[in-house]
Amino acid sequence: MSFADTKKPGLSFASDYMEGAHPSILQRLMETNLEKSAGYGLDEYSESARAKIRAACAAPEADVFFLAGGTQTNAVVIDSLLRPYQGVIAAETGHISVHEAGAIEYGGHKVLALEHQTGKISADAVSACVQAFRQDANHEHMVMPGMVYISHPTEFGTLYSLEELKLLSSVCRSNHIALYLDGARLAYALACPENDVTLADIAALCDAFYIGGTKCGALFGEALVIPQHDYIPHLFTMIKQHGALLAKGRIAALQFDTLFTNDLYLHIGEDAIALADRIRSALGEKGYTLAFSAPTNQIFIALTKKQAEDLSEAVDMSFWENIDESHVIMRIVTSWATTSADVDALIEVLS
Amino acid sequence: MSFADTKKPGLSFASDYMEGAHPSILQRLMETNLEKSAGYGLDEYSESARAKIRAACAAPEADVFFLAGGTQTNAVVIDSLLRPYQGVIAAETGHISVHEAGAIEYGGHKVLALEHQTGKISADAVSACVQAFRQDANHEHMVMPGMVYISHPTEFGTLYSLEELKLLSSVCRSNHIALYLDGARLAYALACPENDVTLADIAALCDAFYIGGTKCGALFGEALVIPQHDYIPHLFTMIKQHGALLAKGRIAALQFDTLFTNDLYLHIGEDAIALADRIRSALGEKGYTLAFSAPTNQIFIALTKKQAEDLSEAVDMSFWENIDESHVIMRIVTSWATTSADVDALIEVLS
Amino acid sequence: MSFADTKKPGLSFASDYMEGAHPSILQRLMETNLEKSAGYGLDEYSESARAKIRAACAAPEADVFFLAGGTQTNAVVIDSLLRPYQGVIAAETGHISVHEAGAIEYGGHKVLALEHQTGKISADAVSACVQAFRQDANHEHMVMPGMVYISHPTEFGTLYSLEELKLLSSVCRSNHIALYLDGARLAYALACPENDVTLADIAALCDAFYIGGTKCGALFGEALVIPQHDYIPHLFTMIKQHGALLAKGRIAALQFDTLFTNDLYLHIGEDAIALADRIRSALGEKGYTLAFSAPTNQIFIALTKKQAEDLSEAVDMSFWENIDESHVIMRIVTSWATTSADVDALIEVLS
Amino acid sequence: MSFADTKKPGLSFASDYMEGAHPSILQRLMETNLEKSAGYGLDEYSESARAKIRAACAAPEADVFFLAGGTQTNAVVIDSLLRPYQGVIAAETGHISVHEAGAIEYGGHKVLALEHQTGKISADAVSACVQAFRQDANHEHMVMPGMVYISHPTEFGTLYSLEELKLLSSVCRSNHIALYLDGARLAYALACPENDVTLADIAALCDAFYIGGTKCGALFGEALVIPQHDYIPHLFTMIKQHGALLAKGRIAALQFDTLFTNDLYLHIGEDAIALADRIRSALGEKGYTLAFSAPTNQIFIALTKKQAEDLSEAVDMSFWENIDESHVIMRIVTSWATTSADVDALIEVLS
Repeated sequence: MSFADTKKPGLSFASDYMEGAHPSILQRLMETNLEKSAGYGLDEYSESARAKIRAACAAPEADVFFLAGGTQTNAVVIDSLLRPYQGVIAAETGHISVHEAGAIEYGGHKVLALEHQTGKISADAVSACVQAFRQDANHEHMVMPGMVYISHPTEFGTLYSLEELKLLSSVCRSNHIALYLDGARLAYALACPENDVTLADIAALCDAFYIGGTKCGALFGEALVIPQHDYIPHLFTMIKQHGALLAKGRIAALQFDTLFTNDLYLHIGEDAIALADRIRSALGEKGYTLAFSAPTNQIFIALTKKQAEDLSEAVDMSFWENIDESHVIMRIVTSWATTSADVDALIEVLS
Repeated sequence: MSFADTKKPGLSFASDYMEGAHPSILQRLMETNLEKSAGYGLDEYSESARAKIRAACAAPEADVFFLAGGTQTNAVVIDSLLRPYQGVIAAETGHISVHEAGAIEYGGHKVLALEHQTGKISADAVSACVQAFRQDANHEHMVMPGMVYISHPTEFGTLYSLEELKLLSSVCRSNHIALYLDGARLAYALACPENDVTLADIAALCDAFYIGGTKCGALFGEALVIPQHDYIPHLFTMIKQHGALLAKGRIAALQFDTLFTNDLYLHIGEDAIALADRIRSALGEKGYTLAFSAPTNQIFIALTKKQAEDLSEAVDMSFWENIDESHVIMRIVTSWATTSADVDALIEVLS
Repeated sequence: MSFADTKKPGLSFASDYMEGAHPSILQRLMETNLEKSAGYGLDEYSESARAKIRAACAAPEADVFFLAGGTQTNAVVIDSLLRPYQGVIAAETGHISVHEAGAIEYGGHKVLALEHQTGKISADAVSACVQAFRQDANHEHMVMPGMVYISHPTEFGTLYSLEELKLLSSVCRSNHIALYLDGARLAYALACPENDVTLADIAALCDAFYIGGTKCGALFGEALVIPQHDYIPHLFTMIKQHGALLAKGRIAALQFDTLFTNDLYLHIGEDAIALADRIRSALGEKGYTLAFSAPTNQIFIALTKKQAEDLSEAVDMSFWENIDESHVIMRIVTSWATTSADVDALIEVLS
Repeated sequence: MSFADTKKPGLSFASDYMEGAHPSILQRLMETNLEKSAGYGLDEYSESARAKIRAACAAPEADVFFLAGGTQTNAVVIDSLLRPYQGVIAAETGHISVHEAGAIEYGGHKVLALEHQTGKISADAVSACVQAFRQDANHEHMVMPGMVYISHPTEFGTLYSLEELKLLSSVCRSNHIALYLDGARLAYALACPENDVTLADIAALCDAFYIGGTKCGALFGEALVIPQHDYIPHLFTMIKQHGALLAKGRIAALQFDTLFTNDLYLHIGEDAIALADRIRSALGEKGYTLAFSAPTNQIFIALTKKQAEDLSEAVDMSFWENIDESHVIMRIVTSWATTSADVDALIEVLS
């Protein structure tokens, strides 16, 4: 029940980064393998991928960079957007708040953690945080809120509605702070019937965001999008300084070029959502309790420790958190690569 | 009602750093003014002050450094004690958590904030935090608790009992993490009848602490004490790197040499405590509500906003926090320099 | 003549990161693509690659991590090895000194730059630097040398001899500072007849090093090797904090597993060296001047600006530096993927 | 012959921070000691000192802050002015380059060191550095020069002429980078006949500078001047974050208020200069060799090691650097507090 636990039961639902890449990505890597191209994202595949992403986001001026992973993308953006006296507002459960080993503080910035509602924060809470800072007699001795970090889907698999995102954006813009969206699992939002937020909405409402590749069909990689050109000056150099500049930029770019060909990215999460829905139904029918309600590819089940141990013999899940001495929350995750047969076998195991 | 508010009513109880220094300190600065001495704390006055502090703390091997202020002392100690993957546990209300403008994060470290009880944190809460980290399946992706920061008196004027301090020390030592005590107002603890913690106790139970001068009778300065020699390697250089090494170290040292002559430091806060007690009694008699109970030189009064405004016309207090739309907490502080006449006048004003 | 210059002449010799991966790597990515494996390097492919690298390095206890790129690997190692009051000694021409956009300083550390001899630094120079620091009356006000960074081959394509490496190692060990080797192009050293340094030598003589993949046949990736187990505590977390932990660790590991199967890594650079030798011979015959002598896959030619411009119309080289108003140094690079036909065409062009 | 050497010969010429403060400063500290004032520089003495400094600098809009020491002032200014991708140009002998224990790198920035001419750098060298960066094909992978640091007098006691300062300023402004002047010993420049740079010149030509107090008659303290109001946004908070905000700001401010009353600061260094001139004459007459020529209060003598040892028995000098195996440079320094009798005795000792 730990990242260090490599014993594998027959069924694997521990995360959405267990497989390689969508076959069409490997196909194109093969086809282009011995071509020679410029480094550092200055090649034609990078340019092509950027063009397709700009089109998909209806953001014709956007700056687009391809990085290797989410934590580094978050650190680069937050470090680049904040001034040294500023911090970043995030849910107390946000990835940057708890699971990035202090990467934001390593860059010199405080995470200003707000209470979450199933992984989300509200425009009202952001507004209250900013106003509290401004009205505090001692605010010049405190860390100024300089931007807002959200994830969509959140770490709890929940989604912001378009209305919620508009309110957040409005609060940020009226307070002159940036809004940044972590889209590590964005494909699973875009494929989810409950979702009413499009890529174009995100580009219109956020100042920076990334389109996740690692968990959404790529071997690795995230596409960082800054809708307004040069909104972050010298971002290329900031990426280099953070050790996040890929020498062979085309390897990441080609993957996004593929994912943004024929709208693959918009559909790649559909099976994962449908299969997660099947699992949720089966769990309900079999009397399991969902720890909280979330419509995307992550499912959180409240179990007794005994149940969790028994189930773990057959299914590789991931431990989420302890509820109390005798109950835990376990997470089951589907991905673009999960098959109906996998889910059949899982449902079979649920007794 | 802000730090920026320089209009001064007749009576000043806004903080304990409003006056200059104890007269005996100025006297000695005058007497020694034109002597020549080595810089950077390598002079005989620094050596003398160190010897007196070691004796007062029953810590004959202690390393002692004199710095200019509390925030820089906290930053130096925390940066020096932590490894890059570690953070510091503190009360969510701790000075380092809220009122140092992100100085700890500037140094690359996360403040792991715990709920407070009137400014204090318990050994149990520290233990739970450390255990939660260790038992978390994902702890290698998280910030490891590396030390504990407490203040005595706390920012709320409260005190740790010797028993509480022993428990904290025990938890820290059994978990191999350092315990650091911020003694910005330590003289007011040592002068307080409720206090049962001596300098020797602190030196025995903590791995680092500072004896506050700025708020306790010095023009400026804090004496950083590391009871175990060389516990923090190259601390001199770390102090320099943080811009905290005083060229004329003797100016700070001479002040501590004076404060630790004839036990002045142990008694310098006595009047402040007695006068604060008089104010607390008067407030009680006149029907005011204390926001919370604290035995040292800080008094926190719950007032309606109207009351706060009216009272502020006559008395310079400091704003502490809003309770709700119509109520606030204001702080009244006495110091080593507060006189009976000041307090008479204040009590007169309280209606 | 800049990284931003994407116009491509017919012949490409600008760098050794222009192609994809060795075909056997793509083959294995295809074969294993839909397998499910644990994240963060805890999978069996990572374990297999680690075992093969330990064997190749005769370092059975070594810690091995797979990262995405060289700058981030350098930053992680240097940040993890140094204490805050220490800096890293490097050639003034070292990659960390000039071409990492301040990544080392971003981590809080000074690069202590030494004069170079065609990219190399000597044991004597390192020793002199350390002794000068120790003997300086003011050394407690200065940055302490805490480790040494070298590259092999260097940025100039030159090689350390085994004797030179032994002397460097000896100086470092007698001064209790770490020796770290950047092997971004290590395959081109190992394939070079002039080279007498084996992987086992490096593992025996250095405290940390990385085996370059990005420039040596992988899509991306570097294998960081710490010969002595746990020499760098909590390195996993440090990697995460730097944003350098790959979620799908197996994608990088599988590439190294392939490169260390049947000694592929030891031979993959051989063609590049042989072809570079052919180019060097041809240049000599045609009367060109090499800017400096280097035996590996990088060739530095001194040209008039006019010559450089003319040649650049047919050949994509990279600009190295200006010699004076009218002369420049241009760099030609071969790689594992360069063909005889490429070199024939290049020699044809050289007039 | 080290900072750690506390054995004191009879005569002390080791530095200009050996004495306390000008008597009129102590006098005013005595007079105002028990007044109550607001903290953090919001008191009337701070306001008065700021007004006098603005007048002396002919900079009516200037922001003025009082900090405790030079290294912290340098770190605050440089960290606040630079963006993360930028570094600071300085002489390789600049205080920030060698004697601040890596304080600038601790803040994340590289010092871009230029060759010096007796402690100075030229406008041409700065221009060449900036142009070299801009013309480098790889400059996006490098640290961008973002500001220039100079000291006046320099660490070698030399002075910039007004013409030189104008050229530096012009190069900086035409390249849109800031010019910052470290005036730790500024009083000794202002009192020097060779000096043709006034405070008003500095305020007109530099974007930030500090007027040194610690070495120029104060107990401690430096006055940071930013001629253009709000040129550095949120500087108050940056000062706090660096641990450099004095709680009792008035203690530093009152010292500057005194130094800027009746032009005391303009004259306080005059005796030091006249006495240094006497020493220089005597050295010349007695056949000593000055290591380099400098007109202010620092004198650098080239001695054999034997001479240095013998002379050190009678005179406390400071070690500057080794020339070769058998020769050293020693430094003799006068201050505002040096007396004719001190100098008579010194000259007596020189044989």
